[in-house]
Amino acid sequence: MSDRNIYLKTIPVPEAVAAAIDALEREDLVHSVIIPVHEALNRVTAKAVTARCSSPTYHSAAMDGFAVKSDTTFTAREGQPIGLAKGSKCIAVNTGNPLPDGMDAVIMIEHVVDDGESISIEAPAFPWQHVRRIGEDIVATEMLLPRNHTISAFDIGALLSAGIYEIKVYEKIRMTFIPTGDEVLPFADCPTPKPGEVIESNSQVFKSLAKGIDIEFTATLPVKDREELLTEAVEKALENSHIVVVGAGSSAGSKDFTRKVFSKLGEVLVHGIAIMPGKPTVIGTAQGKLLVGAPGYPVSAVVCFENVLTPVISWLSGKHVPERNKVNVKLARRTPSKPGLEEIVRLSVGKVGDGFIGVPLSRGAGMITTLTKAQGFTRVPADSEGVELNDTVEVELFSKRSALDKVLMHVGSHDNTLDMLSDKLMGGRTPLRLVSTHAGSMGGLTALKNDMALFAGAHLFDPESNDFNFPFLNKYLPGLNVTVINLAIRHQGFIVPKGNPQNITGIESLGDGKINFINRQRGAGTRILFDYHMNKAALNPSDIQGYDREEYTHMSVAANVLTGAADCGLGIYAAAKALDLDFIPLAHERYDLIIPSKYLNDPRVKTLISLIRTDEVKNTINALGGYETPLTGQEMKPGMGLG
Amino acid sequence: MSDRNIYLKTIPVPEAVAAAIDALEREDLVHSVIIPVHEALNRVTAKAVTARCSSPTYHSAAMDGFAVKSDTTFTAREGQPIGLAKGSKCIAVNTGNPLPDGMDAVIMIEHVVDDGESISIEAPAFPWQHVRRIGEDIVATEMLLPRNHTISAFDIGALLSAGIYEIKVYEKIRMTFIPTGDEVLPFADCPTPKPGEVIESNSQVFKSLAKGIDIEFTATLPVKDREELLTEAVEKALENSHIVVVGAGSSAGSKDFTRKVFSKLGEVLVHGIAIMPGKPTVIGTAQGKLLVGAPGYPVSAVVCFENVLTPVISWLSGKHVPERNKVNVKLARRTPSKPGLEEIVRLSVGKVGDGFIGVPLSRGAGMITTLTKAQGFTRVPADSEGVELNDTVEVELFSKRSALDKVLMHVGSHDNTLDMLSDKLMGGRTPLRLVSTHAGSMGGLTALKNDMALFAGAHLFDPESNDFNFPFLNKYLPGLNVTVINLAIRHQGFIVPKGNPQNITGIESLGDGKINFINRQRGAGTRILFDYHMNKAALNPSDIQGYDREEYTHMSVAANVLTGAADCGLGIYAAAKALDLDFIPLAHERYDLIIPSKYLNDPRVKTLISLIRTDEVKNTINALGGYETPLTGQEMKPGMGLG
Repeated sequence: MSDRNIYLKTIPVPEAVAAAIDALEREDLVHSVIIPVHEALNRVTAKAVTARCSSPTYHSAAMDGFAVKSDTTFTAREGQPIGLAKGSKCIAVNTGNPLPDGMDAVIMIEHVVDDGESISIEAPAFPWQHVRRIGEDIVATEMLLPRNHTISAFDIGALLSAGIYEIKVYEKIRMTFIPTGDEVLPFADCPTPKPGEVIESNSQVFKSLAKGIDIEFTATLPVKDREELLTEAVEKALENSHIVVVGAGSSAGSKDFTRKVFSKLGEVLVHGIAIMPGKPTVIGTAQGKLLVGAPGYPVSAVVCFENVLTPVISWLSGKHVPERNKVNVKLARRTPSKPGLEEIVRLSVGKVGDGFIGVPLSRGAGMITTLTKAQGFTRVPADSEGVELNDTVEVELFSKRSALDKVLMHVGSHDNTLDMLSDKLMGGRTPLRLVSTHAGSMGGLTALKNDMALFAGAHLFDPESNDFNFPFLNKYLPGLNVTVINLAIRHQGFIVPKGNPQNITGIESLGDGKINFINRQRGAGTRILFDYHMNKAALNPSDIQGYDREEYTHMSVAANVLTGAADCGLGIYAAAKALDLDFIPLAHERYDLIIPSKYLNDPRVKTLISLIRTDEVKNTINALGGYETPLTGQEMKPGMGLG
Repeated sequence: MSDRNIYLKTIPVPEAVAAAIDALEREDLVHSVIIPVHEALNRVTAKAVTARCSSPTYHSAAMDGFAVKSDTTFTAREGQPIGLAKGSKCIAVNTGNPLPDGMDAVIMIEHVVDDGESISIEAPAFPWQHVRRIGEDIVATEMLLPRNHTISAFDIGALLSAGIYEIKVYEKIRMTFIPTGDEVLPFADCPTPKPGEVIESNSQVFKSLAKGIDIEFTATLPVKDREELLTEAVEKALENSHIVVVGAGSSAGSKDFTRKVFSKLGEVLVHGIAIMPGKPTVIGTAQGKLLVGAPGYPVSAVVCFENVLTPVISWLSGKHVPERNKVNVKLARRTPSKPGLEEIVRLSVGKVGDGFIGVPLSRGAGMITTLTKAQGFTRVPADSEGVELNDTVEVELFSKRSALDKVLMHVGSHDNTLDMLSDKLMGGRTPLRLVSTHAGSMGGLTALKNDMALFAGAHLFDPESNDFNFPFLNKYLPGLNVTVINLAIRHQGFIVPKGNPQNITGIESLGDGKINFINRQRGAGTRILFDYHMNKAALNPSDIQGYDREEYTHMSVAANVLTGAADCGLGIYAAAKALDLDFIPLAHERYDLIIPSKYLNDPRVKTLISLIRTDEVKNTINALGGYETPLTGQEMKPGMGLG
């Protein structure tokens, strides 16, 4: 075990951040620079700024009209106009013109009658009316901005107006990111990874996050897992950075050198933080600069950036820590969590009825798509064992709150046409984001029961009635008034490698236990269909190798077949076709959208239904192959079967 | 009147925006381009993106440890370890390594005892434990992003992980801004404006706002007020822009050519929008592109950008309209507003006690500093005649809501040392923003009475008792428990031009009506002091020329004297010194901070008091001149006078 550095103690994130801040000297580390004001947006003042010029520098007309001496106008009344000769008693001015000598008021153009030689007015002008007096906006020598102030668009306007063209600000924080790992391929080579290889992408996620907090960012090429190479890379990065981040290698693996290298070059302050994902984070210093070892998993890396790097950088920059918009959501699924660690749970969030619903996504730290699919995340505190179904939790949003009004929440069976709909829904004048949770047909019905979705896709076959969905609706959603609209009839069958090398002809081929099967999760319509045919063939789960291995989507089943991880799985034709696999048909089935009737007037649902009824959508579905559309867009009734 | 184009009808902003959107064809105007994924942050997809590779592309170890075949581990129990020989029964793996052939689970390094040749375990491994299966994150061919999707940092990670290196996005919206006006000086020449001249700054405010919504921005040099020059400039700008904005010249002045030029080159859709500031906005189209005439006043220009340009640009870009954080505040001052126009009222906002307080700032459209001083703004609707004191209004914030916790709300008399304190308060480990409303000493007491400020600066002299502030506190705040802390003793006197050309020696010099005086506003301690000395000299307001002309700060009074707009005004020595003017002393007075005792434990107030008690602050005050600091930082008691 000598080549592994196991860390066992984790410390809470705020303590880790405080340790980093306490170990740095901001004034020594971050220098000031003088830059042009018009390029100073979002920079932070290094000292107070005082105005050089007043604004305006003269009494100026605030309106288009005529400058007058107010005491010559005092007798004007409605119905008793007075005349003022141009040139002597009044002078035409445009907004911004200096007030002519002796004049102390401006009458708006709209309030005069102009006969060419003179004007007549029916109301007096009071002194200094419609005049911007000297220094009205800015008085020379007054303080415009204090130190440590983040310069806004408006500040730039004020500074220029005050004749300030250069400004002393703190330099931008410079971060260098060093990706590591023998297995990672530089993205810039546009590689196609082979087994054992991974495309390096965290550097570009960090670059983008760095842009969001306005710091300078450099990434090196990936460094191989060799201590001396990493040492060299960190030393070089320290030369011109305030912060050096090593990507991956921060954990306890035999090739994890981050901690060792940090210890050698400086001091390790923290190894292991009490948050998940993100736990294997290393924090240290060298040469008065910050060293961070970020975990390699993409979600862990993001958690490290946002929870450790961002607060330290905000403090170094003299800025407020960025803050996400928050919203309370009702949780659509029980979410147990390990006590002792705060957990970041990503959620799909949308508005259903009057409130917001949050559906927890997969918890894997390696799944970057849980961040791209999520609308936000909740923090399950370290002292909690998790959150229950229907509990209200606070979600920190990735978007503005109003974006949630444009989210269309689906929970239910997965079908490839949903992706197509999702794209087309974004093409309308008011784009809608389809947020689809693949919980299987039964999961969709449960979501409707709990009022956690606007609609559910389902393809539940009932052999007794030879009908789809309705028998299940009667049984599981007895009190709920729903409308059922068909999306498509689709072909289910066995997805097998190209050429069907094991010559699978039907469910019977799986009976001898030699075929390595991959199943769908419990509650999936496809699994129910498989069970139905398995029973009909008088087979038992124990007869079928792999019956207990579950995937959640047709595409994952197909991916297992493609890579040889499984010999066969039950799924839709579209999934086989997408990955260029063969397909042994088993059955046709109806894939319907179950919509609580109370949501039929929700504008998002209306948009969805209208879309499904277009010829364009039918044509697109037909072009996918493995679908038929005679019922597409029609309202289904009990007993219709396949129509 | 032939050379003026008076517009009388204004239309509501949403209608103006809709008119612009209806007149544009997004698909024709905004083209798509293919760019590298790693440079695509915040760009908008022009079509759906599907994954090229799966991620991971192989079954991979999700933890550092040992790969095993799970069915060889099933008998392991606590106290009944089993051994697994390295090489055959288990193989060491690091996170990310491919799972060796035949293995289907990983045991974490922390859960094994390693004796060199073999490991022993005390718990079984279940199948696929700590294994990331093929396609767990991304399955090749699945849709990653729909069209019209704004690409996030996370999306970039997902795209690269899926082997997508280029992406089709919409081009960025390109805006060209043309400043106009004979009086405006290009800021790039670093000018010092003479009377009648103004530094062009709106282009740089627009540039900064444009950066905030991620569009490309170009500004031309200022164009003189000549129709043919403006026509030429707009024509040229149209060549390579989606949007051309003409700054100033959009109103009814004789040099306002924007509308005329737009009509000639295309079509005017809107002239005049029902919002204030911002009313004289022109909207048109030419060559399928958007033309906007933005008002010249800086606040009007900003209102035009945020309320007209931003929603149209969001629609063109395929993005959500940006949304500000909002907070409800109690209004500290009655704010009448003209019906028929929505009004944007800028406010200082801070937390006082349990709630947020908003103090309306000056309403002038020419005052860019009302935007730099404000924490946000409220919209007084078109059908409203205004908002009353203590009414609750919704404020759209310029900052995050948490920034308000770091605001220290002051309402009261103006003193130059407040600027100095404001700067030093931003220098602490937790910077505080001093937000100071100059409402005069009496205004400060009123604010404390209404619980609208954390403290108030006051220098109210009571001739009867020869004391400061306490007699007024007893009279106006009888029920409020306050603590009074001296900031400084200061010199008040007449601010006169350098050399005192009119030989002013005291208040008597103002009695003959020949001296052009500038007064302070009602309720200002300085005005009360002036009135006291005026009465003592047996003078009346009518004896004093300019008695009714009011300024709100010492610095504005000094600026009037500097520019010759007034011959003399009463103010503090620091203001005279700042503008290099002469000073005829009149009196010494105590400038105290009145703090409701209930706020003495507010951390912001504690920081303030500690700061005032430092030698550094006393030294800085003494260095200003015109102040004395024997009482600075001490708690005052009734009857102490000047100590």
